[in-house]
This record gives sequence, structure tokens and C-alpha cells, in this order.
Amino acid sequence: MLKEAILHIPDSNYAFTADGKTVVIRLRTKKGDVVRCTLCYGDRVCPEEPAPVKAKPMRLIGSDSLFDYYECKLTACCTRIFYYFTLEDKGETTYYYSNEFHVSPKCGRTEYYQFAYVRREDAVHVPSWVNSAIIYQIFPDSFATERRHISGKGLRKTDKTGSVCISRNGGTLKGIIESLDYLVTLGANCIYLNPIFSASSYHKYDTTDYFSIDPCFGTEEDLKLLVSECHKNKIRVILDGVFNHCGSHFFAFQDVLANGRASRYADWFYRLEFPVRYETPPNYEAFAYVREMPKLNTGNPEVAEYLCRVGKYWIQTADIDGWRLDVANEINHGFWRRFRETIKAVKPDAFLVGEIWEDASQWLQGDQFDSSMNYGFSVLCRDFFANRSITTEEFDQKLHAMLFRYKTPIAYAQMNLLDSHDVPRFLSVCNGNVKKLRLALFFMMTFLGVPSILYGDEAEIDGVTEEDYRKPMPWENQPEKGKLFQFIQKLIMIRKQHEAMTCGEFRTVPVNEPEVYAFFRKTGKEKLLIVLNNSDTEKTVRIPFEAPETIRRLFPDPKTKDQWKGGEFLSLDAMEGKILQIQ
Amino acid sequence: MLKEAILHIPDSNYAFTADGKTVVIRLRTKKGDVVRCTLCYGDRVCPEEPAPVKAKPMRLIGSDSLFDYYECKLTACCTRIFYYFTLEDKGETTYYYSNEFHVSPKCGRTEYYQFAYVRREDAVHVPSWVNSAIIYQIFPDSFATERRHISGKGLRKTDKTGSVCISRNGGTLKGIIESLDYLVTLGANCIYLNPIFSASSYHKYDTTDYFSIDPCFGTEEDLKLLVSECHKNKIRVILDGVFNHCGSHFFAFQDVLANGRASRYADWFYRLEFPVRYETPPNYEAFAYVREMPKLNTGNPEVAEYLCRVGKYWIQTADIDGWRLDVANEINHGFWRRFRETIKAVKPDAFLVGEIWEDASQWLQGDQFDSSMNYGFSVLCRDFFANRSITTEEFDQKLHAMLFRYKTPIAYAQMNLLDSHDVPRFLSVCNGNVKKLRLALFFMMTFLGVPSILYGDEAEIDGVTEEDYRKPMPWENQPEKGKLFQFIQKLIMIRKQHEAMTCGEFRTVPVNEPEVYAFFRKTGKEKLLIVLNNSDTEKTVRIPFEAPETIRRLFPDPKTKDQWKGGEFLSLDAMEGKILQIQ
Repeated sequence: MLKEAILHIPDSNYAFTADGKTVVIRLRTKKGDVVRCTLCYGDRVCPEEPAPVKAKPMRLIGSDSLFDYYECKLTACCTRIFYYFTLEDKGETTYYYSNEFHVSPKCGRTEYYQFAYVRREDAVHVPSWVNSAIIYQIFPDSFATERRHISGKGLRKTDKTGSVCISRNGGTLKGIIESLDYLVTLGANCIYLNPIFSASSYHKYDTTDYFSIDPCFGTEEDLKLLVSECHKNKIRVILDGVFNHCGSHFFAFQDVLANGRASRYADWFYRLEFPVRYETPPNYEAFAYVREMPKLNTGNPEVAEYLCRVGKYWIQTADIDGWRLDVANEINHGFWRRFRETIKAVKPDAFLVGEIWEDASQWLQGDQFDSSMNYGFSVLCRDFFANRSITTEEFDQKLHAMLFRYKTPIAYAQMNLLDSHDVPRFLSVCNGNVKKLRLALFFMMTFLGVPSILYGDEAEIDGVTEEDYRKPMPWENQPEKGKLFQFIQKLIMIRKQHEAMTCGEFRTVPVNEPEVYAFFRKTGKEKLLIVLNNSDTEKTVRIPFEAPETIRRLFPDPKTKDQWKGGEFLSLDAMEGKILQIQ
Repeated sequence: MLKEAILHIPDSNYAFTADGKTVVIRLRTKKGDVVRCTLCYGDRVCPEEPAPVKAKPMRLIGSDSLFDYYECKLTACCTRIFYYFTLEDKGETTYYYSNEFHVSPKCGRTEYYQFAYVRREDAVHVPSWVNSAIIYQIFPDSFATERRHISGKGLRKTDKTGSVCISRNGGTLKGIIESLDYLVTLGANCIYLNPIFSASSYHKYDTTDYFSIDPCFGTEEDLKLLVSECHKNKIRVILDGVFNHCGSHFFAFQDVLANGRASRYADWFYRLEFPVRYETPPNYEAFAYVREMPKLNTGNPEVAEYLCRVGKYWIQTADIDGWRLDVANEINHGFWRRFRETIKAVKPDAFLVGEIWEDASQWLQGDQFDSSMNYGFSVLCRDFFANRSITTEEFDQKLHAMLFRYKTPIAYAQMNLLDSHDVPRFLSVCNGNVKKLRLALFFMMTFLGVPSILYGDEAEIDGVTEEDYRKPMPWENQPEKGKLFQFIQKLIMIRKQHEAMTCGEFRTVPVNEPEVYAFFRKTGKEKLLIVLNNSDTEKTVRIPFEAPETIRRLFPDPKTKDQWKGGEFLSLDAMEGKILQIQ
């Protein structure tokens, strides 16, 4: 047994409770190394000595390139648990606890691993609606000026503070409201809006006034109407919270520029030096080295209080449903815990998504964000679908490594994306090959996590430069009549109709064609088989089980019992994905 | 290279800042596997593309049974860092980032590891006095009734709430005050007092009134006097905070017993069922299954507020210096974060120690406790010194595994212990062999972390049962005249005089005698060699370096230049420990 490969971390994604009752325990081993893995556990405070020990087999739930992951769920157990692992390979049985290997499990119960108490307060709660969300991201400047139309003309206005605000393409909140039926038709049920508060630049990431809507985009009344119209259509709305930094026209920074060290707001910013030099690069901390975006000192309770007030204000004023939080990883954990507490106190099922491109484990313990923007997902899709630089096996392994990073409810709430306002359009990454984009979209819609679409993905928008991938929505092409729109629409419909697609387990199915990827999504009630062909030729794959009684094809077009050849062979066109319901 | 052994966890004890400026990066590899390990890093937001990459060799700072631990400190780096590891063994060079191995480090900078921002708010701050603390733990009932005397007679009194309080041995706060010179003589500079608030049992872990001193022990005035007298003598005082549960006479629980579901305090307790059955076992959550100790619902903000008020009250009223927190691991993280914030707001250098017997990583990120009671340390000392069931090599390996669990400042603040009020006396674990206890004490006093002594350890108190190991202080034996007292006294004096003993690095020194353990403690200014012989025969060991210019023996008795035989050999009596200063 390769001892160096074994990993278990108490009170982490390896040992957690999602509901304050059931306890999930995981263990990592070297791939293919362990024959049997058993969780042995008992009551930490049992009056008997020695305390009785129960044993429960652990289940292999997935593998990446180096490791196997075992899992076991304890239900109706005591509230204080000690546990250890019994590991068997062909030659050896060993007992693992205290991060050490033992030839016998005999020791004081305090020396085993401890799930000290199944603390309901530390359980991971993700809003229940998130699992079935389909996010449509809108970059407000570029979407719509009025019903299915974008002017393409930038505006220049003055906001309440007297500061100048500009836009480039003329998108407005009103335009979104008037085009809502388009989103309803597509099937999206959650809008993520890039920043809409008063700010100098067209992208609005340099906030001037957190309490007012940018005059280029509209008014507070417009936002209220947008949210209420969305809610009528069962669409939730989340806004972009830019709290790492403000814009240089933010009142507090203006005060600092005017009054220097004497400013009442001198401690609102990070590592100010006096005199403050508003130059490039600035002599204070900023977003990157952008002088127009001074970093806010979220360690100052006054600033934290101010920003939490912003977070609360737009929920209470406009009834928004959550926040996507910009540059989340550059802000201290304490601020985010406070922010979460503030937000969940006024709207318990508000959704909080951090912008964290890398492994976000430390932000996703359950006490800060519900989710993060899953750029890791887009990198894997780029490598597998667009570049074909990794094999199906590698793709599968990397997906599993990604899944086991987080506690289960967090993994299911990841905001999966191919595109965002910050990266070249996936279609351009695919060199314009729509079939590749389509297959990646098929995968995102069938995989676990929350699928998200950037406005215009469904209209085949491409673009490599910032200006290009944020280009105006091509309403003139009547995107809702396009094939890609209808392809996505159909997948969304299936996702909504089948709980297994949102809540179901994810299990890889080995097949005999290296370029075909197959997996199950299953609940206790339903089992879906998803198969996709990531090659340019037709494939027939052997499905490693006998044709069951009833097979219903859900996608691409509903059929019954015609897709198996010889009982267990399935055909796929080049770049085709199929969804089969198996009973 | 054994890839399965490699471990790095961003934003953890593997990547942290202790001062908001210096960044510590660690990597784990298979023991003896990697020839060279280099940290490559750069500015995440550097405007140049590609961003320049700097390289810094990582240092092997210790090993346990399976792994080597490498470390690297980045000073004066940028505030936003990407990094990856270049790992070389004899045949191979590999690049490690995103928890994956790569044949080349070529990728977008967002795909490397990220130290997103050197967030000063997330830096680990341990009060500066803690490093040089010597804790003397007093179980109040058993220490002193008056100057160097304990009555041995229990008391029965009624507290302010009308509830009966008892004691067994007659110890009082006044007795401690009058015996303070004893602690001063010993050299202790911090008292940890077991609970002193009004409670039913003699041990006072079933609090009746968090805002008053138990009448068996004295008054609030006595506590104030105790603390002020301690402070005059440069002794700090920490109290025992029992917040997981209260006693059954606590007003809120009495109200629940009287009014059931209608009680205004029904939500102050955990999983109450009605009617509440005050039986054994109770039908509500309690400490273990003790009906007299109902578990408090710290998830209720009102309860959290109440307990934080207790924490603050005794700092503001009696000027205490910190809290040891009982059953800390059964209480939610959110409560402890709030408690820390409350306490540090009123006394920034208050010391917070959690009672967590196991790996306390999740409580010691810097946002909850400064330290935990290090029972792991006592287990290792038991196995090595008392039972001799592990070899010197194993002892060394297990110590290193323990050290690398935590961020450096936390490791240095661990409350190391051989004894506490909850375990058999170490002398009994040694079957009464004082030499073994002495050598273990020698080790604790020379190792890193905060040494703690349970009252009477220095007077050779033994005991296996609770009554026995909490027995009255044997003042009648005039412990300050005893050899063990003087042994400890001398070690404490040396520890106080030599910064290397408290703040110095810890580095194992390999020697040629398997039962001799040697290590350095060193700072930039001073280097101490500590050698101890854990056997019953005299040993002469080869020290693996030439006799330096000046060697000063600090312990057992100061000498110069006489302890090296033939330039590099050192003799130790059976069970002897030596401290040598090397210049």
C-alpha cells in the first residue's frame, strides 16, 4: 500500500455535514492500490470502555490521474464521532488515524480522528434553488437598448455625484426588461448582471456611487422593475459586487485626494502614502496597478460596515437574489464572513458567488461563498473540446480532481462557465468551430454544477479582444431562430424536467472508444446515461451493460428503443451528444 | 519522483503570512525523494506578458516518517503572487501547480498557484508575550487555602442565585494570592486557572453563574487582587471559559425546566425535546451524557452575545489576560470567530487557547484560537520517555509531523503539556520513575511551544484516578526545597535568559547513539545544542561537527570547554539532558 498517497483532513471537504445530521467521510488513496476500505467509528463520549466500534464499507466514488477517492455517509449516528480507517490491499491490513498508520487500532479513543460534534451551525447550506439554476450573464452595456435592439451608441452622462459616466454600446436596464421574453424562451432562470452602479468606465468596475444606478443604464426604478418582471417570470437576478476596490471618483477617495493624511477617509484605503500620487503606477494599492481603482481597506470595520450596507440595500430596495463578488480572493476572509452573515440575515436564500479562478477551497467551507466562478471548468473544456490537447481519460480525471476539492453541496453549486466577460469567447477558442462549442455546451448542460451562458453565446458571438468579446448582441440576426439557440433551449428544457441532471450523482461509464465520453447522472428514482463523441467521425460504442427494459432517448430527439444496436451498442455521429433515460 | 506524496495547499499552513508582508510557502515531498526543490514566483498582475518569474531555492526544514518538508520565505515580494514548484530528482524535472504535474511551466499565469493577495487581515497574530510564557496550571480547589497551606476540607456554600456550591479540598483564590511568591520562585509567568465561577460541583465545569466567583473560592475582589498581584510580579492570568455547556442551575436552564416549551430560553439549548427529561441520559444534548451539563446553543445569536459578554466582562472587570476554552471543538467556528473578535477588541494581546486534543488545524488558522492544549505532545512524551515504546527516530519524526501541521507562529504558541487536570499524572504514567518525568520536563522546557506545568508536578504529585491526580498540593513537604522544583526552576531561568529557547528554530542533529536525542535551537544571534540521553546507561555521542571556538555549558551546571572529549564527543549520564551554547 502506498502510504504516502493516503490523505484525510478532518473538518474539511474530507469530513463534513451538509444537513447537520448526515456526516460524509472521504479518504484518498493511490489509484488502484487499496482492495477494501472500511470506516470504523463510534461514540466519542460513550460511557462504555472500550467504546463499541461499528464498521461501514467505503465506496469508491471516483478517481483522478493519481488517486482513488472513497466516501461513506453516516446517517443517524451519534453527535460526537471518533473514527479510523481500515485499509486492505492484497498483502496488508493497516489502520489509519492521527495521520499515521498503525498495525492495530488499539489506543485511547481520543487518539483516533474526531468528528468532534456534528455542529449544525457549520453545515454547508446552499440555497435550494441554485441546483436547478441556469445562469444567463448580461454585460449591460452590450445587451439591449430597447426590445431586441441595441443602439451601438455610447452615452456620456453625469451621475448624482456630478461625476461623468460613459457607455459604449448603449445597453440599458430597460432594454433587458423589454427583451426578457427572449430569456424566457431560451429557458434561463437566473440573470447575472455585470456592474450597474454609477461608475466612470463603460465596464462599471470603477464604482463612483454604490447606491445609485449608472445613468447610462437607467434608474433605481428600472432595476426594481427589472427584478419584479424577472420574478414574475421565475427568473432570479444577481448583481456584481465590486468591493475590492472603488473608482477614483468614489467620495471617500476624492476626500483623500483633496485632504491627504487629514482626510476622515484616510484609513478607507490600503497602504496609502502621503502625498497620495494619483499616477501610473500609483503609490497606493489598487486593482492591479490601475490608479483609477484604489483598493478598499476591508479590514477597517467602517468600510466593512459600509459595503455590507450596500449588499443589504439592493436586496431590501430591489429584491435582488444574490451577489457575484468581484476579485473575491484579494479580500480578507473576515470581511466575506461578515458579508455572508449580513446578506443571509435579510435574504436566507440569496446566492453568493465569488470570483476566484483558482482552487477556492478556503472560500467555500460554507462560511463565505456558496459557489465560485468555475474557470477551472472552462480550462478543461478548452483543452478537451476546443484544443483536444487532453484525452478523454485525462478530461475525466481532471473533472474528478475538481469535484473532490469541495464539499458535495458546493461542488453542485459551482458556476460552470465556458465564457465570461473576462476571457475570449469559447467560439474563438474553438477557432470558430460551432460544433465544438455545441458539444462543450452539451457537456456543461449535462454535467453537475450550475451552467452559465454569457449573453450571445447562443447567437454565436465570438471575440478575442476585450472589445470584441463584449461586442453588442446581434439582435439583427434573430438569434432565437438560430440552431444553437434551439440546441441550448432543448437541453435546458431537459435539464429542468429531469432532477437527475441537476441533483443526480455523477459516475463515469467506461466505454471502448477513446474519444467517446460517457457518464451517468442518477438519483434514487432516475438514471440518465449521457454519451458524447468528441471526434470528427461517427462512433459506435459498446455500453458495458445489457440493454435494459426501457430506454428512452431524451436528446437529441426523443425516441424509444431504437438506439441500441445488438442490445448494447450505441451509435453517435461526429461531435454528437446523447441523453438516454434508462429504467 | 513519487508524485502521490507531493502536497501543497494554498491559503493554509502550506502558504501563509505571519506579518502581512513575508510569505511562507511550504511543500511536502516523499522522504529523500527530491534532489532540489525551487519556488518560482512572480507578480500576478504584472503588466508585462509573460510576467517575469523569479526562482528561490526551498530549504528542507524537517522530515517525518514518510515525508520531507520544504520551506521558502518571500520577503519584499509583490502583494499578489503566482507561484509554482520546480522539482528535480535524479532523472526528472517536473513543474507542480494547480495540484498537477507538468512537463513545462508554460501556461497562463492564472493557472499557477495563487497567493491572491498578501492580506494583512488574514495574517496570524499571536500575542508577543506568549512565546516566552511558562504556564502554571492551578486547579483552584486543590492548591492553597492560605499561604502555602491547603485545608483539605470541602466547603458547602450558597451562591448569589441561591444555588448550592461545594468544594472538596478547600483551595481559594486568597490561598493562591498568598502563595504567589512560590510561583515567582519557580519562575512561572502565567497562571491558567481551572474554572472559578459559581458552579455546583467541586470542579466547577457546571457553571451556575458566569458573572460571579464561586463562593467556595472567594469573591470578585479576590480575583481582582489576584490578577493585580500577579501583574505586579509579571505573571499573567488566564481563566477557563466553559461555554459549550452550562450547569443545570444556570438561570436559563432552570427557566426551561420550569416552563418547558414556553420558556423564553427554550432556544438557548441544543435539541431540546418537550417535556424536558432531566434524567440520565437526558433527552437533550449535554456534555457527554451528563444531564447536569446541558449544551448551550451557540448558534443562537443571543447566546453567543451572552457568552461574549462573559468573555469581555472578566477582562474589563479583573484585567485577566486570556481564556482557555473548554470543549472548544464541539462549538461552531462562527462562535469562536466572534468570541475572538470581541476579546481582541478589548485586549489585543489576550491569549486564547482551545481545548482540542486532536489536530486543531481548522481552529488555528489565525481567526479563532492562538493556541490549543497540546495533548499530542503529551502522547509523544508518554511513548518516548515513559513507555519507551517508540524510538528516538520515531519521536523526532512525530514531533516534525506535529510541527508542520500549523502555521509557524501557531506552532510556537502551542500549549505543551505533560499533565492536565484531565489525565493521570505523568509521574504515574512513568510508574513513579522521577528520572523519566524529569527528562520529559527537560525536553518540554527546551522544545518550542509554551511549556505548562500542572500544580504539584514540581512536587512529584502522582495519581491515576481523577481524585488522585487532582489531590491537594503537598505544601507540607516544602516542595520549593525539593530537587525537582530546583531542576525546573533552573531550566525556566535558562529559557528566560536565552531567546533561542523560545523563538529559535528547531533543527534535529543526527547523532550516533540511538537513544540519544539532539537538536539545535537557534536564532540569528545564538545557537544552542540540546542533547538528552533517554536510556539507563551513560552514553558518549559523536557530535557531527568540530568543537567550535567557544562552548558554554548552560545546563545542568555552567561550565566552559570541558564537555567535549577528543574535540567532538560528548558524554551524558543515564537520563541526563544538557544544554550547550555554541559560538
